[in-house]
Amino acid sequence: MKMLSGHSNADGSPERLNRRRFLVAASAGLAGSALAESATAESLADVPAREPGADLSGFSARSQYVKISRIPEAGPGRRNIDPSEAINSKAPLQDLVGTITPSDLHYERSHSGVVDLDPARHRLLVHGMVERPLVFSMDDLKSMPAVTRTAFLECTGNGWENWKKADENVTVQNTHGLVSTNEWTGVPLKFVIGLLGKDPASTWMLAEGGDAAGVARSIPLTEEILDEAILAYGQNGEPLRPAHGFPLRLLLPGMEGNLNIKWLRRLKFGDQPWMTRWETARYTQLLANGKARQFQLRMETNSVITQPSGTMVIRPGRNRITGLAWSGHGRIAKVEVSTDGARTWQEVALTGPALPKAQVRFQLDWAWDGKPTKIVSRSTDEKGNVQPDRKSFIAAMGTNALFHYNAQQTWGIDESGRVRNVLD
Amino acid sequence: MKMLSGHSNADGSPERLNRRRFLVAASAGLAGSALAESATAESLADVPAREPGADLSGFSARSQYVKISRIPEAGPGRRNIDPSEAINSKAPLQDLVGTITPSDLHYERSHSGVVDLDPARHRLLVHGMVERPLVFSMDDLKSMPAVTRTAFLECTGNGWENWKKADENVTVQNTHGLVSTNEWTGVPLKFVIGLLGKDPASTWMLAEGGDAAGVARSIPLTEEILDEAILAYGQNGEPLRPAHGFPLRLLLPGMEGNLNIKWLRRLKFGDQPWMTRWETARYTQLLANGKARQFQLRMETNSVITQPSGTMVIRPGRNRITGLAWSGHGRIAKVEVSTDGARTWQEVALTGPALPKAQVRFQLDWAWDGKPTKIVSRSTDEKGNVQPDRKSFIAAMGTNALFHYNAQQTWGIDESGRVRNVLD
Repeated sequence: MKMLSGHSNADGSPERLNRRRFLVAASAGLAGSALAESATAESLADVPAREPGADLSGFSARSQYVKISRIPEAGPGRRNIDPSEAINSKAPLQDLVGTITPSDLHYERSHSGVVDLDPARHRLLVHGMVERPLVFSMDDLKSMPAVTRTAFLECTGNGWENWKKADENVTVQNTHGLVSTNEWTGVPLKFVIGLLGKDPASTWMLAEGGDAAGVARSIPLTEEILDEAILAYGQNGEPLRPAHGFPLRLLLPGMEGNLNIKWLRRLKFGDQPWMTRWETARYTQLLANGKARQFQLRMETNSVITQPSGTMVIRPGRNRITGLAWSGHGRIAKVEVSTDGARTWQEVALTGPALPKAQVRFQLDWAWDGKPTKIVSRSTDEKGNVQPDRKSFIAAMGTNALFHYNAQQTWGIDESGRVRNVLD
Repeated sequence: MKMLSGHSNADGSPERLNRRRFLVAASAGLAGSALAESATAESLADVPAREPGADLSGFSARSQYVKISRIPEAGPGRRNIDPSEAINSKAPLQDLVGTITPSDLHYERSHSGVVDLDPARHRLLVHGMVERPLVFSMDDLKSMPAVTRTAFLECTGNGWENWKKADENVTVQNTHGLVSTNEWTGVPLKFVIGLLGKDPASTWMLAEGGDAAGVARSIPLTEEILDEAILAYGQNGEPLRPAHGFPLRLLLPGMEGNLNIKWLRRLKFGDQPWMTRWETARYTQLLANGKARQFQLRMETNSVITQPSGTMVIRPGRNRITGLAWSGHGRIAKVEVSTDGARTWQEVALTGPALPKAQVRFQLDWAWDGKPTKIVSRSTDEKGNVQPDRKSFIAAMGTNALFHYNAQQTWGIDESGRVRNVLD
C-alpha cells in the first residue's frame, strides 16, 4: 500500500508514487505498518495493457492463478497415496474466504468410492413401524414442500491427525479439512413421516446408503432431530454432487458426518438401534478406561485459525488472523483468540451473522513483534459449551479414541515467521 | 410414490409393491393424487447392483445425469450465436434449487470478454477528494478486516426479453437468467474511506474496471451505500472467478449489476457524477415521453416462478410451484401466487429466511385440474414496494426503455400441460 503524490511525497514529484511504507495505517486503526509488499510507480506501470478477454461461456471457470484443491488421503497421515487408496478428501481451509464451501471443494468421506446413481431409477424405501410403507421416486420427493438452510458437516474423525502427536509440517487442510458448510435444500423428514403414519412407539430410524458399502446408521428420533432432519437433494443451489450423495442424502444438522447417509435408499422405523457394524465396529469410541462409548453423535464446539496456519510464513507487523468456528449444539456465541500461547485471551469479531449449526468466520488484526509465540482460538456456543484445551481434552478422552476431537488448535510461530502445528 | 405391501395391498401379496396410485397423499395434506411416475416392483428390482464407485479426488464433479449450464447470448433474443458474439450468459434458474447460485453458474454480463488478471500485479488506486491518495495490492486488501454477506446481483437488462413482446417458447433462463445470489466476502468500503481521509464534501465516487472496456460508473455516496459497499475478493467461499471480476470487484447490494464494477482498479472521490459514456449513452432509460432518465440505480422488487416455467410440460394433479423473489430495497416481506391468471392471489410459503437484498425461494402445493390457466407471482418488500403487473408497468415506463423491467411474469398452461411465456 503506497501513498500517492501530491500531499506528503518525499521527492515532491506529483506524478510519482511515494516509496515510503504507508504509515497512515496505524493512525487509522491498523496495528503497525507492515502491510504486505508495497506497490511502486514501476510496478503500477508494469501492469499489463488492457486487452479483450476470453469469450463468455456456459460456466465461469476458476482463475489460472487460483491453485485450490482438496487433498485425497488414505487415513490419518497417509498422504501422497495412489488415488484408489483414498478414503477421504480434505477441504482447503487455508484458501477459503467467507463461510460457504464451494460444492466441488466440500470435504468428502466415502466408504466405497463415489457412485453416480441414475436419479430416474433411484428409489427411497420407507418402512418398519409405520402404517403405510412407501417407495418414493426423486420426482415424488421434489414435488413435496422443501426447506433450505445452511449447515456444516464434519467427519467425526476430523482432527485425528493431532490426537496422539503433532506433525509440525502440516497445513490446516491436513489437520482440520474434514469440515465444510453448504446451503442444503430438501424435504423435511417430518413431512415424510406425516405420510407414513409412524407408530408413536418408534424412537429410532435406520438410514441406509446406496453405495456398495451400504453404510447404515441408527438415528435416535429426538425432537431436535425430528425438527431439523432433511432428505436433501440440493447443495449450494444445485443438485447434490455424486461425492456428496446424489441424488439424495440425509441431512442431520450438527450430527457427525457419517450419519448424514449419502445415496439414501432406505429409512426403517423401529424402537431400538439396529447395531449395524458401522456403530459397533467402526464409529465407536474406545475410552481411556477400556470401555467403548457408542452413539456419541453430536459434533462438539470447535474452532481453528486458518490464517496464519501450518507451513505459512508471516512477517513482523500487522497480520490478520482469521479462522472458522462451529458447533453441533447451535450458534457460536463467542470466539476468543490468544496470541501468547493461551495465557491471555481476547474476544474477536465475526465477519457475518452466526447461523445455527453453521460455520462462522472470525478475525483479529494482530501486530506481531517478531518474537516466537503461539496463536490459538477457542469457541463458545449458545448452550455454553466451551472448546477445551488439549490437556483437558486428553485427560477426559484418553488417547485410544479416534473420533470427536475438538481440542483447541495451537500454531507455533518461530522468529523466522514460520508457522508450525504444535500440540499446545 | 407407491404404497408397500402388508396393509392395504390390493392383491394381498406381502412382497409386492402396490401399483395403485398413492392416495394417502391427499389425506396427508397433499392436494391430489397425481404424483410423477410411480415406482413398481419391477422398477425397484431393476435398480442396478451396488458397485464400488470412482476414486476420491481433488474436486467433486457434477453427476453425468445433471445437465445444467448457462446460456451465452448476444443480446435480447439473440441466442445460438458464435461464442465471440456473446455479451452475457444467463443462469439456469429452472434447474436451481435453494437460493445460492453456484459460482460457475452465476449469470455474467461482460463488456469486453473475460480477463484473467494476475492478482500479484493487480493494484487498486484510490484518489480524488481525499487527504491521502493510496494504492493497494491484493495482499494489502486481504490483510484488512472483512465482512461476509449474501446478496443478489442483477443485470439491469434482466427481463428485457418480455418488454415489447413475448416469445412463447422460451425458458425462465431466457426471460430472467440475469440474476443470481452469492455469498460475498471483502473489505467494507467504509474501512478504506477511513484510511483515505475523504473530504466530507465528496458525495460521489467513480469506480473503474480493469477490463479492456474500462467500464466506469459514478456512484452516489448515500448512507445506505456507504454502509453496505464491499471491495469483494471472495464469492461463495472461494476467490472471485474471472467472469465475476477476479481478483477484486465492487459489491453494492441491491444496486444494478453494472455498478458492481468487476476487475476493480480505481476509485475516485468527487462532488458530482462523471457522466461517463456508461451513464450517458448506455445505461440511461428512454421514457415514454422521450426524456431520458439517468441514475436509476436500485433494482426493484421482483419475483418469478421457476417451476413450472416456459417449455415445461406438467400433468394434472398435484404440482409444486416454486420460484425466487428479491428486492434491491431490502428483505422480501411477502410473495403471492395466482393460479387463475391474476384474478385471485394467495400468500405462499418461503423455504427459508428472507435475507436483505438476497433472493428467497417460495413454494406452493397446487392441484391443477387440467384446464388451461395462467400462473403468476408477485412480491412485496419490507419497504412496501409491490411488484407491478405488466399493464401498470408499461403504462408507467412505456416501451422505449430497456432497463429495470420488473413486471409480474405470467406463464400460460394449455390443456396439454405445456407451459408458455405469455405477457399477461
